[in-house]
Amino acid sequence: MLYSVIPAGGSGTRLWPLSRSSHPKFLQPLTGTDRSLLQATVDRLAPLSSAERTYVVTGVAHAVAVSRQLPGVPESNILVEPSPRDSCAAIALAAAVITTRDADAIMGVFSADHLIGDPGRFVEVIQEAMVAAAAGYLTTVGITPTRPETGFGHLRIGSSVNATARLVAEFREKPSYEVAVEYTKSGEYLWNAGMFVFQTETFLEELARQKPDLHAGVRRIAAVWDTPERESVLTEVWPRLEKISIDYAVMEGAAAAGKVATVPGDFPWSDVGDFHALGESLPGDVSGNLVLGGDAIVLTRDVKDSVIVAESDRVVAAIGIDNLVIVDTPDAVMVCPRARAQEVKQIVEALKARGDDKYV
Amino acid sequence: MLYSVIPAGGSGTRLWPLSRSSHPKFLQPLTGTDRSLLQATVDRLAPLSSAERTYVVTGVAHAVAVSRQLPGVPESNILVEPSPRDSCAAIALAAAVITTRDADAIMGVFSADHLIGDPGRFVEVIQEAMVAAAAGYLTTVGITPTRPETGFGHLRIGSSVNATARLVAEFREKPSYEVAVEYTKSGEYLWNAGMFVFQTETFLEELARQKPDLHAGVRRIAAVWDTPERESVLTEVWPRLEKISIDYAVMEGAAAAGKVATVPGDFPWSDVGDFHALGESLPGDVSGNLVLGGDAIVLTRDVKDSVIVAESDRVVAAIGIDNLVIVDTPDAVMVCPRARAQEVKQIVEALKARGDDKYV
Repeated sequence: MLYSVIPAGGSGTRLWPLSRSSHPKFLQPLTGTDRSLLQATVDRLAPLSSAERTYVVTGVAHAVAVSRQLPGVPESNILVEPSPRDSCAAIALAAAVITTRDADAIMGVFSADHLIGDPGRFVEVIQEAMVAAAAGYLTTVGITPTRPETGFGHLRIGSSVNATARLVAEFREKPSYEVAVEYTKSGEYLWNAGMFVFQTETFLEELARQKPDLHAGVRRIAAVWDTPERESVLTEVWPRLEKISIDYAVMEGAAAAGKVATVPGDFPWSDVGDFHALGESLPGDVSGNLVLGGDAIVLTRDVKDSVIVAESDRVVAAIGIDNLVIVDTPDAVMVCPRARAQEVKQIVEALKARGDDKYV
Repeated sequence: MLYSVIPAGGSGTRLWPLSRSSHPKFLQPLTGTDRSLLQATVDRLAPLSSAERTYVVTGVAHAVAVSRQLPGVPESNILVEPSPRDSCAAIALAAAVITTRDADAIMGVFSADHLIGDPGRFVEVIQEAMVAAAAGYLTTVGITPTRPETGFGHLRIGSSVNATARLVAEFREKPSYEVAVEYTKSGEYLWNAGMFVFQTETFLEELARQKPDLHAGVRRIAAVWDTPERESVLTEVWPRLEKISIDYAVMEGAAAAGKVATVPGDFPWSDVGDFHALGESLPGDVSGNLVLGGDAIVLTRDVKDSVIVAESDRVVAAIGIDNLVIVDTPDAVMVCPRARAQEVKQIVEALKARGDDKYV
């Protein structure tokens, strides 16, 4: 069995006005069902992890919402960070807590806000990654590219580790479009989706080698996690932990030392980066429209290939449009062409600049 | 001085979701200011009619809102119909009430929900119409066509009455597009905008000739209007009045008898039939956008030639669109291209068919 760790943070400003700092993307039902992205992530992991082996790391702002969305996850598995210290501290804390409970643990790290199209294949790929993890590798699931993509970091594949896993020769930053075309053509690159599987002890050893202070800090916190001292030690140690991503802190250096493997994830995958991506990730109706909404009345007349998210109890009516995004929420509505869905973040910037933080 | 009579009825379904049966078009601030169309109509008539000579005929559903929007209009000048009996009964009632108060009255009839672009020229034209009315004509202000228009009835112009007025040879129904092109080319047709100026006694005489029962009914009601018997007589007589438009009941027959004159209205005019027409009628910003709204925050990014009506206190954000209509209200939002703004009425039909009358 796998321990699943789900870091649940980040606001997803390109999904405004649905995603807000107070109620971010991972809490939203962007799954085509009434389950949130976070809930769907837990559901997808059920064949691999029991609820007792499912962990979430989240911030103080979302601890209550996470707890209520995941009533089956034990209280002691919801790790609430006092303040955001980036992905390495979050994942290392989970690894350290889990290893005090089970020193032989293999844990996987899974984003709380991604969509995966073939959950059966996903489980198989993670099982392949667990084999490599058991052999001592920090294993990452790289997504097989389906297009040149400038929005993600890439993994350059090295020599074989076993039948399915390969070494990661190198982590590469987000490429230019021309470089992304080359990467895709070569077949030697995967997208870095921030999905990792490793033995907790392997990871913590590598953390100790590369970031000894961070390692000492999370070990110290984990040692008292299930005691009354948790709060005082957290208060003392957590704010001093280095704020750094897991890629920079551990993975890049481990890859250079030949310790990182990858298993290609050849399932449909989306980081649901914006409303256009959402429309690409979920099945539409006969007119190519994706309509998400709870109790809203959505009336369309000659509407095609559009994304309509109706998360209020209001009427949303659309006539004669195509490839448009309409997002309706109780206090804001947003309209833009799908091709310009990335620019939604500029609206969020504009609201901040105006001081209208309550809409952000 | 002129007595101005403003029939305030009709819901304007092509302006949904702004216009509702409970809060129709004429009560809405579609004027580019915070004044409603009804208030702007009264403002425009101020140089011609004092508040004491301004009358509104409205239904029970809107009597309260009308009274509050026009605090300067005397209570006795707001004529509340027990039920809708079409335009002839409404206008005849006003004529009969006014003539009991001033037998020499000249009254004008003005729609509550039209926009006029040059109020100074409007006043001059009405003064010209008053000259023809004083000479005994039922005088209509026909709008000089600016395009072939299939949405309005037309007036065929006859021989001259004086320097500015001409006889109306004939009232014509809404034409086909080909016929409308001919009409516009000929220069012998005006749009019938439902704007009339006449002596109350002249009108009532012509009504008595063509519709004696309707005439007798409104005379009977008017005789007791300012007495305690108003309610009982209204209750008895009003429901039996013929439901017919003023054009069919009086104007067409009067024109055939050579009693109708017209003065061309060469001012910018719109019946604000839909949101596209609204965008044509009011000045836009440098990008060609018309943005109407009260307290809403409207954020646009690369938006052109669009109509945005934000009548809630929510944020309305739009990116990268042109020639689109976005209308936001507290319980419904509507998006359509300007070219298809007429189809909004189909959405209203769909809501009715669903039984969702509360949104209509």
